[in-house]
Parts: sequence; structure tokens; C-alpha cells
Amino acid sequence: MPAPPGPPSATRPAVGDEVRLARAYLSRVAEPPAHALHAFVARVGPVAAAELVRRGEVPAAVDSQTSARRAEVRPERDLELVAEAGGRLVVPEDPEWPAWPFTALDTAAANGLRCGLQPLALWVRGGASLAAVTGRAVAVVGSRAATGYGQHVAEEFGFGLAEAGVAVVSGAAYGIDGSAHRGALTAGGTTVAVLACGVDVAYPSGHRALIERIAVEGLVVSEYPPGHTPARHRFLTRNRLIAALAEGTVVVEAGRRSGAKNTAASTSALGRVLMAVPGPITSVSSSGCHELLRSGEAVPVSSVAEVVESTGRLGVDLVEARRNTEVGPPQGDAMRVFEALGLSSGHSPEAISVESGVELARVRALLPQLELARLAERGDSGWKRSQEASWRGDA
Amino acid sequence: MPAPPGPPSATRPAVGDEVRLARAYLSRVAEPPAHALHAFVARVGPVAAAELVRRGEVPAAVDSQTSARRAEVRPERDLELVAEAGGRLVVPEDPEWPAWPFTALDTAAANGLRCGLQPLALWVRGGASLAAVTGRAVAVVGSRAATGYGQHVAEEFGFGLAEAGVAVVSGAAYGIDGSAHRGALTAGGTTVAVLACGVDVAYPSGHRALIERIAVEGLVVSEYPPGHTPARHRFLTRNRLIAALAEGTVVVEAGRRSGAKNTAASTSALGRVLMAVPGPITSVSSSGCHELLRSGEAVPVSSVAEVVESTGRLGVDLVEARRNTEVGPPQGDAMRVFEALGLSSGHSPEAISVESGVELARVRALLPQLELARLAERGDSGWKRSQEASWRGDA
Repeated sequence: MPAPPGPPSATRPAVGDEVRLARAYLSRVAEPPAHALHAFVARVGPVAAAELVRRGEVPAAVDSQTSARRAEVRPERDLELVAEAGGRLVVPEDPEWPAWPFTALDTAAANGLRCGLQPLALWVRGGASLAAVTGRAVAVVGSRAATGYGQHVAEEFGFGLAEAGVAVVSGAAYGIDGSAHRGALTAGGTTVAVLACGVDVAYPSGHRALIERIAVEGLVVSEYPPGHTPARHRFLTRNRLIAALAEGTVVVEAGRRSGAKNTAASTSALGRVLMAVPGPITSVSSSGCHELLRSGEAVPVSSVAEVVESTGRLGVDLVEARRNTEVGPPQGDAMRVFEALGLSSGHSPEAISVESGVELARVRALLPQLELARLAERGDSGWKRSQEASWRGDA
Repeated sequence: MPAPPGPPSATRPAVGDEVRLARAYLSRVAEPPAHALHAFVARVGPVAAAELVRRGEVPAAVDSQTSARRAEVRPERDLELVAEAGGRLVVPEDPEWPAWPFTALDTAAANGLRCGLQPLALWVRGGASLAAVTGRAVAVVGSRAATGYGQHVAEEFGFGLAEAGVAVVSGAAYGIDGSAHRGALTAGGTTVAVLACGVDVAYPSGHRALIERIAVEGLVVSEYPPGHTPARHRFLTRNRLIAALAEGTVVVEAGRRSGAKNTAASTSALGRVLMAVPGPITSVSSSGCHELLRSGEAVPVSSVAEVVESTGRLGVDLVEARRNTEVGPPQGDAMRVFEALGLSSGHSPEAISVESGVELARVRALLPQLELARLAERGDSGWKRSQEASWRGDA
């Protein structure tokens, strides 16, 4: 097996080849999201899990997810294929694994949400570190059947976010996705295309050149092994990764039943900031956006500045501080949300929003971050301060 | 003095000529809003107030508001002029006075808000009863410098609301206002033009035919006596009446410094439902609307059905029931808001919104109505149930 080429040495995986090979095997043997397999890997580790799956010595639930493909998977071949395409397999054991953004997927999975579950591995093309890029990223998504207005806005947002140092995440589809990617590339910034097929497959074919350019200047990412073709359910499965890899998602244009509504739902479920761009009410291409605004699920954004204002970074610093045991109080909105938490009785995000004066979408985004920083916890009665939040006496 | 012509006998004023003559005098003698004069009238009554103003035997604050014009006002002549224009003077003592919608102006004035204070009288052209028309009315306002998109939407909303039996209130200006009026007229519905000049003055002059048609098929209303010309401050003063006469205001298009933003501010301050129509973010004519949406001051509306859903009638029935001492529990959203009120401690509208699940703008609109129905009261700590809300045991 050739060593996967890739990112700068600082972020090079220190993980052994057997782990990568095992995860390459696991990545293809079951169709994601495979909850039983995921739990099995968590229990026995990836190397043992791959071996036991191959032998068929697994619990029934895992067997039913893996029996169809278990004898045919050639992980060495997949790793060769991705290397030929200039890519690599990134595994959770790698430093560049986006562990922080993906924690929300675990929480969602624990809550039984459809958008839950981390990938078992990610196939990646592009020189940058996945974790570094997604440390400050916003998703820009929308209809394939976009209007000239929508495409213009997507390109402007892509350009402006990239200029502001924010990576632009999208799905490489026709319409809004493509415009967002192109805007970011025009600005010389970073853009991430998350595919519903192998990273060596150009889909849609009309975007072959665009995807190749993103693979050079940004990142092309997929949960699916090389050669995998897209399918309807894979777009839905893929959408949760777009939502998870970004601090927030901007829906530029969406009809009432657009796939972008699915990404929007994942964004909210993962506690990320959901934004929607207003458009003419006479345009069916904006009707999904207006629905999201009217329901209060999304906040309206009319400019890149408003997108940056609505997202903003916080969680990473907070958790880093916690990890270093140099724990200080959270800052800004996070501090206000933390202050609004009860010591003993729990409160709803709505009540915390009212108490803190921080907008609801932001509260929903911050609470899981405070939870991961072990400053907040969720109980039957709602959110309250964690037992551990003792540093507060120093604040 | 000729008897004012006008509305059906059922709503004909039973008020004496001397009261009407006095209010005609008071209507012209001071530039509204004249707080001192208003308080003086409330204290001594309109007839005595007019006589004392004419003689100059008034407190200094009233004198400074009335001394310039007190000797020159000819109320008989004004009543003749309005009659010649097919109109009448409507006074608070008349059954057709919109007493219920105007209570919010008193509350605002008591709170020192600029948009407060009822008019001393209203000059009206048109056959319908002012109170009946404004019992179910929505204001549709926006920029004079409207785009084709904005004019299209205003006309559609005017048409649809009129078709739904809702009177369309606006300011007869070029752009959005004119389109909203025209839409309502096309539907054969009722529309109300609130002017910043006399009801016999065609302003803007290009809307002469439109205003004349509204005077026949709907109502033309003004706080200013016949012949008064418009002035910048009069538009601002007028805007509070547009907001007060409607259950809610829809801003169709507005630049960041549009006069429609002023009507929007009055709408919120009066506890009415503020709505804004999304538009292209590339259009400066929609930027004021998007500002109102992003701040959360306005709810987005994309259709007439959404406008009706966001407003809906409630208060009148509720208060009527109370007046008849046949008091039953409030219905629907009002019931939910009422149920969320504390018995002893007060709550903020935000907290009540969270508790009841009724959206904040609607809670803000319902609380003053519950107050007037003597079901709720406002204290230092917020809103709570009134002592009188004893019927609840029957519910």
C-alpha cells in the first residue's frame, strides 16, 4: 500500500498504516450512516472491527449492514485510487480530523436524530488540513435551479467570505453551490466541496473542471470511497456533513422542497446558525428561504458582514482553553448565555435567550459548545450549569 | 352651520352641534400633536376648552400652542368646506370614532412616546363608518421611490386583503401607497387614505383622481382641517394614525431612511403587528425591510394569507364581551397569552412569548388588548393577570 500523499508535515498523521487500512475497509463495507457498525468500531477499535467484519464474526445488526460487501472490499486498491487522484484518507485518529465540528454529529446521533453520526473516515483531495480549513467555515447552499439573482448572491457571498478568511463549504452542485465555490476561488480563498460520490468522480459532469480546481486550491471531501457514484439518499447523507463542517449555513435560494431545506434542517439540528437570504416573494426559488425566515428557524442575512456577525468563532478557543486546563470564563455571547444558566434548575434555550438577550439561534449554537467545554449540562428540565463550572468564582 | 352629511343613520352622531363646532375650532387652533391642549380639553371638555382658548384664558402651555391662531379660526367655515367636499367632522363623542384602535395612542402618550396622542377630531370623506372600517384593517406602506417589484406586491396585497374583507389603510403617496390603494379598489374593497393635509387637498397632485375615488368608495381621513397643506412634520404626525387605525402594518419596500420606517416604528410602539416583505438583497428599496426583519422587529410576510395569519382579529370581540358583562374567556392566542400570565408576579412579553408559545410580536399586540379587556395589568415587574380576571374559574 502506498503511503497517502498529502498535507504539510505539521499535520501529517502519526497513525499506523493498519488503522488507515482498516478504516478504508470499513468506509466501503457498509453504506453510511451505519449506526451498528459505528458502535461496533467504537467498542472494539477499527483494526479489530475490520477483521471481525471480514470474517463475519459480528453481531447480527452489524452483519446485516456489512454482509453484502464484506468479501469484496479491497482497501489497498481504494487507497491507491485516492492517491492517484492526489488525495488521501483522513481518519479520526489523524490530527487533521475535524473532531470539534463533528462532536455535534455525536450529540445528534445520541438524540436519535437522522442527521447524526460521524463518518468512519473521509476521503480528501487537496493540500490543506481539513481541521484547519473547517475551523472557520460557513456553508453556502441552495437550489440547483437557481435564478440569476441567486447565482449572483451566492458568488458575492462566496467571494466576500473567502476574502474575510472564511472557508466556503458547499456541495459542488449546479446553481447556488457552483456559484459559491467559484466566488471563493475568484477571491483566492479556500473552498470545500463535499461530494455525495467518490472524490475521483466528477459529478455533476459539467462541474468537472470546477471540482478539479477545488481539489488543487481547496478541498474535495467525501464519505464515499473512490469510484462511488451518487444516489439520492447519498445527497441527504452528505448534507449533514456540509452542515457539520461549517459554523453556520446560508441558504441562498431554495424552493419549498429543495434539497437545501434538508441541509438547513441538519444545520438547526446540529445547533449551528442557520441563515437565509431574502429574495423576491414572487420567486418560487426564494420561497423555501422565506419559509425558514417566517418560522424563525433562520435569521435573514443581506450581506457578508451580516453572515460573519451571525456566526463568529467561539467554541474552538473555549474548548482549547478547557483542554489546556487553563480554563477561563467564556467570552462575549457565550458568557452571557453561561450567566443565564441556572445553578440547579434547567432552562429552555428560549428562556435562556430571553434572559441573556442573546438571539435564540445563537443560544442554540452556543449551548452544545458550553456543554463540550463542560460548563453547561442538559438535564430533564433543560440546560443548567455543570458541576464542574467552578472556575466561575475566579471570574 | 350645515349638518354634516355622511354615514348611515345607525352610526349617525348623537352629539350636539356645539361639541362638533368646538372640536372643529380646536382642530385648527393648534398644530397637532398638542399635548397641553389635549389635556386641557380632557379636563374642561371641548366646548369650554374652545371658548377659553378663544378668550385666551388658558394655562401658559396651552396659550403658547394656541395664541397664534386663536382669533382667526372660523370653525363654521371649515365645517362648510368639508361638507362641500362631501365630508364631515368625526369627533370622539361620535359612535363612529375609532375609540378602540386609538386607545393605544393614549397608552403611548402616557409613556411619553412621540407616536402618542389621539387626534382632537378627524376630518373624513366617504360614506362608511370610520369605526366599522377600521375594525378590520391592515396598513400597507412603503417608499415613494418604489420598484416595479414593490408596486406589484403592494397592489397584490391591496387586492388580496380587500378580497378577504380587510380594509387597506395607507397614505395616498406615490409608489407603494398608491399601488396598495389601487389594488383594494380593483377588488371592490374598502381602502382608507390618511392624509397629511386637508381632505379637500389633492396631495400628491398626480393622485387627485385616486384620492377622489377613495373618497367615494372608501374613506379619506385627516387630522388637518380643510385647506391645510402638507409639511414634512405633518407626514410624521400622520404616520402614527396609519399605524393606529390598523391591526398591523406591512412595509412592502423601504430604504434605510424611508418615511415608512417611521410608520414601522409607530406600529411597534403602539403594540401592533409589524410585517415586512422580503425582496432582493441587491435592491436598496428593500434594505429597510431587511433591517426590520434582521432586528426581529418585523415578521416576514410573503402572501396575503400570511398577513391575515399574523394579524387576525381579537380585541374588539373581547372588549365587546367585557362591555356587555357577558365576559367569557379569551380565545386562541389570547387565551394562551392569558394563561401564561402570572397571578402575582409580572413577566416580560418575551417571557410570556416563551411560556405561551405565541410569537413575540403577537404577544406584544395582545397584551394591551387583554389590558383593555381588564384581564391583564402592567406593573413594575411586568405583565400579570388583573384582579378582575375572576371569570377564569368558569373557564
